[in-house]
Amino acid sequence: MANAILLISCRDQKGITAGVTNFIFHHGGNIIHADQHIDEQSNTFFMRVEWNLQGFQLTREGVRGEFAVLAERFQMKWDLFFSEDMSRLAIFVSKQVHCLYDLLWRHQAGYLQCEIPLVISNHEAARSIANEFNIDFVHIPVDLENKAQAESVQLDLLKEYEIDLAVLARYHQILTVNFLQRFKNKIINIHHSFLPSFPGKQPYDQAYQRGVKIIGATSHYVTPELDQGPIIEQDTVRVSHRDSRGDLVRKGEDLERMVLARAVRWELERKILCYHNKTVVFA
Amino acid sequence: MANAILLISCRDQKGITAGVTNFIFHHGGNIIHADQHIDEQSNTFFMRVEWNLQGFQLTREGVRGEFAVLAERFQMKWDLFFSEDMSRLAIFVSKQVHCLYDLLWRHQAGYLQCEIPLVISNHEAARSIANEFNIDFVHIPVDLENKAQAESVQLDLLKEYEIDLAVLARYHQILTVNFLQRFKNKIINIHHSFLPSFPGKQPYDQAYQRGVKIIGATSHYVTPELDQGPIIEQDTVRVSHRDSRGDLVRKGEDLERMVLARAVRWELERKILCYHNKTVVFA
Amino acid sequence: MANAILLISCRDQKGITAGVTNFIFHHGGNIIHADQHIDEQSNTFFMRVEWNLQGFQLTREGVRGEFAVLAERFQMKWDLFFSEDMSRLAIFVSKQVHCLYDLLWRHQAGYLQCEIPLVISNHEAARSIANEFNIDFVHIPVDLENKAQAESVQLDLLKEYEIDLAVLARYHQILTVNFLQRFKNKIINIHHSFLPSFPGKQPYDQAYQRGVKIIGATSHYVTPELDQGPIIEQDTVRVSHRDSRGDLVRKGEDLERMVLARAVRWELERKILCYHNKTVVFA
Amino acid sequence: MANAILLISCRDQKGITAGVTNFIFHHGGNIIHADQHIDEQSNTFFMRVEWNLQGFQLTREGVRGEFAVLAERFQMKWDLFFSEDMSRLAIFVSKQVHCLYDLLWRHQAGYLQCEIPLVISNHEAARSIANEFNIDFVHIPVDLENKAQAESVQLDLLKEYEIDLAVLARYHQILTVNFLQRFKNKIINIHHSFLPSFPGKQPYDQAYQRGVKIIGATSHYVTPELDQGPIIEQDTVRVSHRDSRGDLVRKGEDLERMVLARAVRWELERKILCYHNKTVVFA
Repeated sequence: MANAILLISCRDQKGITAGVTNFIFHHGGNIIHADQHIDEQSNTFFMRVEWNLQGFQLTREGVRGEFAVLAERFQMKWDLFFSEDMSRLAIFVSKQVHCLYDLLWRHQAGYLQCEIPLVISNHEAARSIANEFNIDFVHIPVDLENKAQAESVQLDLLKEYEIDLAVLARYHQILTVNFLQRFKNKIINIHHSFLPSFPGKQPYDQAYQRGVKIIGATSHYVTPELDQGPIIEQDTVRVSHRDSRGDLVRKGEDLERMVLARAVRWELERKILCYHNKTVVFA
Repeated sequence: MANAILLISCRDQKGITAGVTNFIFHHGGNIIHADQHIDEQSNTFFMRVEWNLQGFQLTREGVRGEFAVLAERFQMKWDLFFSEDMSRLAIFVSKQVHCLYDLLWRHQAGYLQCEIPLVISNHEAARSIANEFNIDFVHIPVDLENKAQAESVQLDLLKEYEIDLAVLARYHQILTVNFLQRFKNKIINIHHSFLPSFPGKQPYDQAYQRGVKIIGATSHYVTPELDQGPIIEQDTVRVSHRDSRGDLVRKGEDLERMVLARAVRWELERKILCYHNKTVVFA
Repeated sequence: MANAILLISCRDQKGITAGVTNFIFHHGGNIIHADQHIDEQSNTFFMRVEWNLQGFQLTREGVRGEFAVLAERFQMKWDLFFSEDMSRLAIFVSKQVHCLYDLLWRHQAGYLQCEIPLVISNHEAARSIANEFNIDFVHIPVDLENKAQAESVQLDLLKEYEIDLAVLARYHQILTVNFLQRFKNKIINIHHSFLPSFPGKQPYDQAYQRGVKIIGATSHYVTPELDQGPIIEQDTVRVSHRDSRGDLVRKGEDLERMVLARAVRWELERKILCYHNKTVVFA
Repeated sequence: MANAILLISCRDQKGITAGVTNFIFHHGGNIIHADQHIDEQSNTFFMRVEWNLQGFQLTREGVRGEFAVLAERFQMKWDLFFSEDMSRLAIFVSKQVHCLYDLLWRHQAGYLQCEIPLVISNHEAARSIANEFNIDFVHIPVDLENKAQAESVQLDLLKEYEIDLAVLARYHQILTVNFLQRFKNKIINIHHSFLPSFPGKQPYDQAYQRGVKIIGATSHYVTPELDQGPIIEQDTVRVSHRDSRGDLVRKGEDLERMVLARAVRWELERKILCYHNKTVVFA
C-alpha cells in the first residue's frame, strides 16, 4: 500500500502541526510517521509526515492542489512524494569499486527502494560489476582538456536515463559549476575523511601524516564548494600507530560503504531536509 | 517560561495527532517538541508533545480537565507534566561512589533539572560526598535479618522527603517486592553489564571469565524480577586480553556514569514511556 | 619476501623473550612484529613474533628442529607458520548470503591472504555468487534424518579440498560433536548477537523482545557447546524503539560482515591464541 | 614491588629486541610488559619494556650506566623510569571545571599514580574544588598586558612545586613560545574538537555551524603551533539536528573528561613515545 510523504519547512508559528495533521485526518489519511523539529537559532520549523493512502479521499493531484492552500497560509517550502514512485539512480565511480559493489548488493537485497539503471565511470574497472548486476555501464574518460565535453555526455545520459539522484561512489573527478547548474537534481558524495578534516585529495594520507587516532567518512550533498556541502552522515573508527597507510584505507573503506549507504537510503526515503548548508535527518 | 508536556499511549487510530495538536493550538499553545511512534507489532501509538504556556488560555487544572475529554475519546493512557515542577530525587548508593559523584556534579552544573535532598546508603563511604554537596545523608545498614526493617525506614524517608524518583547509583541490595509495591514512584537502576548478559552479582568478573571483547552498562527501571526491567539506555566500550579484571572495572565505571546520567536526565525531562517491558525514549 | 611467525604459550618465567628473540637474531632474522602478553591470573605467557626470512640461515625444517630445543626448555606450546603458506578456506552458508558475499569481495580485493576453493550450503541461494567468483559450490541439503550422512559428505569434501579453516558465514545448522572431532582444523562462526546475550535461535527476535538499546555480533571458534566457544571479536551498534525487527536485521548484517571479516583476517594472519576458552588477539 | 620501564627509539636494525631483553634477563629481571613497533615509512624502531625489580641485580644508577653501553651500540634515544617515582602534576584550568573535577576524582580513586600539589587558574571558579581536595590553588589573572609577567609567576610556581607534567584541563590562555622553552617538561592539553577539525576558539560553535553529525575531543602535547602538537588520544560522539549548541557542549564535556584522563594516565604510565609530531601509544 502506497504512502504519501510531505517535507515541510517554514518560519515557526502556532498551529502548523495542527494544520498539517488536520489536513491529513480530514481527508481520511492515517499518519504512519510524523517528525518535527524547530531550529531555535533561525526560528525555522521542519516537518516530515508520512501517511497511508488507503482510504485517503484525494487523488495525487488533489492532494497537491489542496495542500498548496495550507502551505500558502504558512508560507511553507514543501515537497510531496509518493512511496510508490521509485527514484532512478546513476552511480558515478572511478577505480575503487567497494562503494559501488555495496550499493548494488544492498539494492539487490531490497534495502534501497529505487531503480539503478546506469553506472558512469572515467575508468573501466567497474564495468564487470555493472554487468554482473545487469546495469548499463558507460565509460567516459575525463582529463583536463576534455572535461567540458565529458560532462556534456554525462548530462545527456542523466537526461536520457531520467536520473533523479546521482551518487558519487568514490568518483575522483570534481564536477564543474556548469554541471551542477545543469543537473537540477540532487548529488550525494562520499568523502573519505571526517569532514571538515582533510578535504580534497588523499585524505587517508593526510590523516596518516597528522597522526590522528580516529578516522572517518562523510556523506554530503555536492555543492560548488568542494567538500563543503550539507553533511548527511558521518562515522568514525579507531586507528593506532600500528595502522599503516594501507590499514587506514582498508578500515576506511568499511566506513565509506556504510556511511554512503545510510545517506542514500535516507534520501530515497525522503528523510532529509537541507537548510543553511546543514541537514535535518528524520531517521 | 514554563512548558507543559503530555505523554500519551493508546491503540493506533486515525486522528490522534490531529486531535492532540488541535487541542493545543485551539487554546493558544505553541508546540516546542512533538514526537510520535507507532509500534506496529502491537498497533500502539505513543506521543510526547511539549508546548509553551505563554499565551495558553487554560489553567493547570483546566488543561487537565479539558484534555481528559479528548483522552477518553481515544482511550488514552496519559500523563501531564509541567516543566516548572521539579522532581525530587533520592539516590541510593553502597560503597562505589563514582555514579553518585557524577550525578551530583551534573546536578550542580545545571544538567539535571531536579532537587536532590536525600542520599541513602548501607555504608558510610558516601557521607562526605553528600555533605560536600549539602545533601542529607542517612546511613541504613542492611543485612539478611534487618532487611524488612531497613526498608521500612527507607520508605518512611522517601515519604518524608516527598521523593518522586529513586535512583540506585550502584546500590548493592536487592529491593523486595514489598518495597516496590509500597513505593509507587519510579526507580532507576544502573547495572554494570550489557544486559541481558551477566545479570546479578559480579558482572565484571563474569565478563572477564567469558572473555568478551566489549563490556557494557545498562540503566533500567526496577521491577520485581532482578535486572529484568525495561531498559532505558545502554552503552559499550571495547576491551582486550590486555585488560585485567581491574581494567574492566575502571573502564566500566565511565560507562556507568554516562549511562545512568542519560537515563536520569531523560526521565526528568519526561522523555520515556514504558510498554511491554520496553521503553520508548523520545530523546 | 616470506616471513616466519611463531605463536607461543607457556608458564611465565624469566628469560623467555630473551630466549626467543636471541634465537631469531642469532640465525640472522629481522623481527618485524613482536607482541607478548602475560595473563596474571593463570601466570601464562603468550607471544607472537614475526620475522623476515631474508638472510635467515635456517631452512624451514631447520628452524622447526632448532626451535624445538628452546621450546622444550620452557615447556612451550608453539606453532610455526610461514606467510607464504596460504590457508585454504571452505565457507559454509545457508540462505543469508551477505557474509559470504563480503568475504569473497574482501578476498578479491586482496584483504584476505588465503585460497577459497569451496562453498558448502544446505540451500541453493549462494550458488550464483560462488559461480560469480569461480568457486566450487556444493549443495548438501540437511535435515534431521540425513544429518550424519550430510556431515560425512561435508567431511569428505573438506578432506578432498585440503581445507585448513572452515568459516560458518551464517550457516544455520548445528555441527555435531562427531563432525568437530573428525575435522581437526579450526572453525570460525559468526553469531548475530552480542554473546553471551541471545545465544541460539533468532537472536534478533530475542533482542527485539527484550528491548535492548544496542545490538551486536560475535565471531567465535566453534566448540561442542553451542555459541560458547572462545570469542574472537565483537562489535555493537545502537538501535532505538524506532527500529523494527527488520531494522535490527538490516543493521546487524553490517556488523556481522565486519566482525566475521576481522576474525577471519586475524586467524589468517596467525594473530590469535586460545586459552581457557578465551582468546589473545595480537591485532 | 617497583618496576623499571625503558622507552626506546632508534633506526630499525637486527638484534635490538634480543639485545634489550637479554640485558634484562642477564641481570635477573622478569619482563612484565614488552611492546614494540616499527614505523616502516621512517624505518624507526620503538620499544617499551617494563620489568620487575625483585631479584634484579643492578642498582638504579647501575642499570642506567650499563644500559647506556647497549644504547650507544644501537644509537638509541632512550628514557628510563621507575614506577615508584611519582610524577608531580600541575593542573591549569579556566572557568570550566569538569575536567579538573574528573582528574581529581580519578586521582582520589587511585586511577592516576601521581601527586597533584598545584592548581593554577586565571579565574576563581576552581578554588573551592581545589580546596575540597586539599590542593594548593593559585589565582593568576591573565590579560594581554600582563601575560609575560603572569607566565613568569607560573614558571616560578612550577619550579617551586617541582612539577613534572602540566595538564591544561580547559585552560583558555595560549602559552607563549617563551613559556614552552622555559618549562622543559611535558604539557598535555585537551581540545574540545576532533582535531584537525575546528582548532582554536569556540570549536563547539564551529561544529554547530558546520552541521557535523559527530563531535569529538582531542588530547595532545602542547607545541608552539596552536592545537598542532602530537595527538595522544581522541574520541567521538554522535550528534544530530536535535542537538543545540548547548547540547554539543554537554555531550562534549563527557568526551573531554574521558579523553584527557586517558592521555594523562598513559603519560603517567610511560606508555607514550613521540616522533614526527605523532605518538606511539603502547596502551
